[in-house]
Amino acid sequence: MFTDWLRRTFAGVIRAGARLFGRMGLSPNMLTVLGCLLQLCAGVLVALGHLALGGVVLAVTSVFDAFDGALAREQGGATRFGAFLDSSLDRFAEAGVLLGLAWYWMQLPGALEEMLIYVALVGSLMVSYTRARAEGLGVQCKDGLFTRVERTLVTVVGLITGWVGVLAWILAIGTVATAIYRMIAVYRSLGKEPLV
Amino acid sequence: MFTDWLRRTFAGVIRAGARLFGRMGLSPNMLTVLGCLLQLCAGVLVALGHLALGGVVLAVTSVFDAFDGALAREQGGATRFGAFLDSSLDRFAEAGVLLGLAWYWMQLPGALEEMLIYVALVGSLMVSYTRARAEGLGVQCKDGLFTRVERTLVTVVGLITGWVGVLAWILAIGTVATAIYRMIAVYRSLGKEPLV
Repeated sequence: MFTDWLRRTFAGVIRAGARLFGRMGLSPNMLTVLGCLLQLCAGVLVALGHLALGGVVLAVTSVFDAFDGALAREQGGATRFGAFLDSSLDRFAEAGVLLGLAWYWMQLPGALEEMLIYVALVGSLMVSYTRARAEGLGVQCKDGLFTRVERTLVTVVGLITGWVGVLAWILAIGTVATAIYRMIAVYRSLGKEPLV
Repeated sequence: MFTDWLRRTFAGVIRAGARLFGRMGLSPNMLTVLGCLLQLCAGVLVALGHLALGGVVLAVTSVFDAFDGALAREQGGATRFGAFLDSSLDRFAEAGVLLGLAWYWMQLPGALEEMLIYVALVGSLMVSYTRARAEGLGVQCKDGLFTRVERTLVTVVGLITGWVGVLAWILAIGTVATAIYRMIAVYRSLGKEPLV
């Protein structure tokens, strides 16, 4: 998938950045929290109507998403809580950016794009929820096109180009379709296996 | 918790209802899907401004949430996919009702209540997400006040009484606080345990 390609290609850059932050005295979990706060800033910028600037901030701060895990590995291994915190704050950060976009649209006439953003919000959270719930039941569930990296990429491009209507449609359809696709994938791999 | 009390108190009723549906030829998963569709109807009613009626429909259809699991146990045991489907469709159903309420407010002036509903939407999904993600990492995480039953109860009361502004505040604060509370609980139980 695109996510894996990105990680492979930029592995060296990510490791160097992570080491730098480590030398500044930041822990992996601090990087996770910092990344989330910076992405919420992108959401505020979008809410205030600075779409392109918000898109740039979102793009830059998304890189933090890779640094925390890399730093944890450098420092002798990721923790279970670190993984939990990273996933949970990713969801809050993503929701913050979409709520910023929704707020922006709330000031304009017309309810369709606004509703599309909320559908995208539900869809994005459900893509992550289906995976987490499946893993809780012991099933891998990483399939589907609109994982976090793809969602962020579409959002960044939409914000910077100003094609936010197109962005809203793509995100809404893409995320809900991915969530449903994952549900079907889980059905295929589980069938009628009993719950233990 | 309140959820457990409800299940104990109405155990007999739930079993009888589940048997009835079973004799009508419905499978547990069909009950799950039916319950989700009926709750989405409640969301549509709310969106159209029939708040009290939507609240009544939501209250009645919420009972389906107990029937599917009860029928599965009657029929020789729940399946892992059934548990996954139930959790995932619960999230979609809940999001549908809140989107109905958001749509209703979109037609009225003022953006605050609308934004509160979206915060409640994110908070509700995050309460469920934190639990699912924690379970995927091997930690129980059922704590916190605003689990699904409490959220539904507040929503039903708010819709029927027409106090939807109060409902929006309680849901927004209660769900986000519960999600954060769960994150702290996971931190307490995991500490620095390594990720395997």
